[in-house]
Amino acid sequence: MSFVDKLDKASERNRSLVCVGLDPDPDLMPDVELFEFNKAIIDATADLVCAYKPNLAFYEALGSAGMEALKRTADYIPGDIPVIGDAKRGDIGSTARAYAKALFEVFGFDAVTVNPYLGQDSVQPFIDYKDKGIFILCRTSNTGALDFQALNLWSGRPDCRQQPLYMLVAMKAREWNKYGNVGLVLGATYPQELREVRELCPDMVFLIPGLGAQGGSLKAAVKYGVDTGGKRAIYNNSRQVIFASRGAEFARAARLAAEDFRQQIETNRPG
Amino acid sequence: MSFVDKLDKASERNRSLVCVGLDPDPDLMPDVELFEFNKAIIDATADLVCAYKPNLAFYEALGSAGMEALKRTADYIPGDIPVIGDAKRGDIGSTARAYAKALFEVFGFDAVTVNPYLGQDSVQPFIDYKDKGIFILCRTSNTGALDFQALNLWSGRPDCRQQPLYMLVAMKAREWNKYGNVGLVLGATYPQELREVRELCPDMVFLIPGLGAQGGSLKAAVKYGVDTGGKRAIYNNSRQVIFASRGAEFARAARLAAEDFRQQIETNRPG
Repeated sequence: MSFVDKLDKASERNRSLVCVGLDPDPDLMPDVELFEFNKAIIDATADLVCAYKPNLAFYEALGSAGMEALKRTADYIPGDIPVIGDAKRGDIGSTARAYAKALFEVFGFDAVTVNPYLGQDSVQPFIDYKDKGIFILCRTSNTGALDFQALNLWSGRPDCRQQPLYMLVAMKAREWNKYGNVGLVLGATYPQELREVRELCPDMVFLIPGLGAQGGSLKAAVKYGVDTGGKRAIYNNSRQVIFASRGAEFARAARLAAEDFRQQIETNRPG
Repeated sequence: MSFVDKLDKASERNRSLVCVGLDPDPDLMPDVELFEFNKAIIDATADLVCAYKPNLAFYEALGSAGMEALKRTADYIPGDIPVIGDAKRGDIGSTARAYAKALFEVFGFDAVTVNPYLGQDSVQPFIDYKDKGIFILCRTSNTGALDFQALNLWSGRPDCRQQPLYMLVAMKAREWNKYGNVGLVLGATYPQELREVRELCPDMVFLIPGLGAQGGSLKAAVKYGVDTGGKRAIYNNSRQVIFASRGAEFARAARLAAEDFRQQIETNRPG
């Protein structure tokens, strides 16, 4: 089954556009072993989400024990819920093939995030896994997005209006999307940009971080993020859900936070 | 000791600007266990190089055994030769801190490569390790560099009108280089761009891949890559050195290839 089909099914079953980010930061975690922490969060939220998204940085920072916990976590997530490996990799073709192998074959992720800076040959080896989802960073949720992504392209041609870099990335992503498995990462912190890119790419799946701890407006992010059917947008929340409590009841608190987040999105979701 | 001092010392001691890329591709390797392969290559070339550069993709593709071999390799490299972890990471601030911890503290690399697409807050957590080297991707060696890096952008600043993206990245890198530990990655396959960026950043260390298997011109890459003292450029060669032979004599063949590469650079090096 393709990533998009799996996502659609999970999303319908749980009436949810929520992705829970499994980003275990030792400074914020309750006093629980890493895999046990993830397992408890998954058990408490599996009927409320359309996807899970572990960010590899937090596991790599913990060395081999972290990587082992990541593998166990990916294996533990129920088979009918897609897992997005948030890795943001990008390298030249031959190396990108090795990264794709690591993420799709070693960890078995259903989808990954990739960085577009190195262009098509850095992304194609991922896209060639036709049943996997490839989320290309477009307009990210952080302030540094202004440094390069927001700069306008200078076209020497008078008939061609200026476009910011992230719009060119979206255009290229659309062009590369021969198998229907390419999506985009768009921060909820930039709702007008989200709207613009949704107009350009009406059918693509958008992965939308930046709500919750990062403070983006949920209402605008839902209004402009979903497709015309009110679907194809994945709203990620990491810290507000998984670190809702540091006490013994952390999993129950995570469930309540995820349910609240789900409900806020459903209230604002058209269709 | 800072990364740049360590690099300068190794480079002077071995009269070398050669970096050997430790990128073990199972399809190209002789029939040897991974760490033993790296160990043999290191033993055969340690007096000929100024740095080693493992690319993490090839280790991640081999799962936990690969990551274990990477750690052992980083530990095995003689302490007076800098190790560049070629990871090309890039993520929002809080996540970038986790990646920096993984690369500098778990693996103990002396330097890393990072991707600039997410802007300053994605790079700063690396730069804050003042004794480590941070190579920001600028103009990469692959054909995909044309997709975005080569586009002309309007920066909005009075001192630079329209500039290709890679030049804006170089300008930002120069601005961010408060501790003297920021360098750039520039592909040898684009010698004119290398020349341009060297003019803009006369003192920075450049990491220059794309010679050897990727076919860039060595003469132009040396002429335009080094600083006015004939230093501060690191020429990486992976496949032509480490896969010089698949036979039992692979380490000796790697030494001959590294020595040849070193000599070609020395012949063209001014000063």
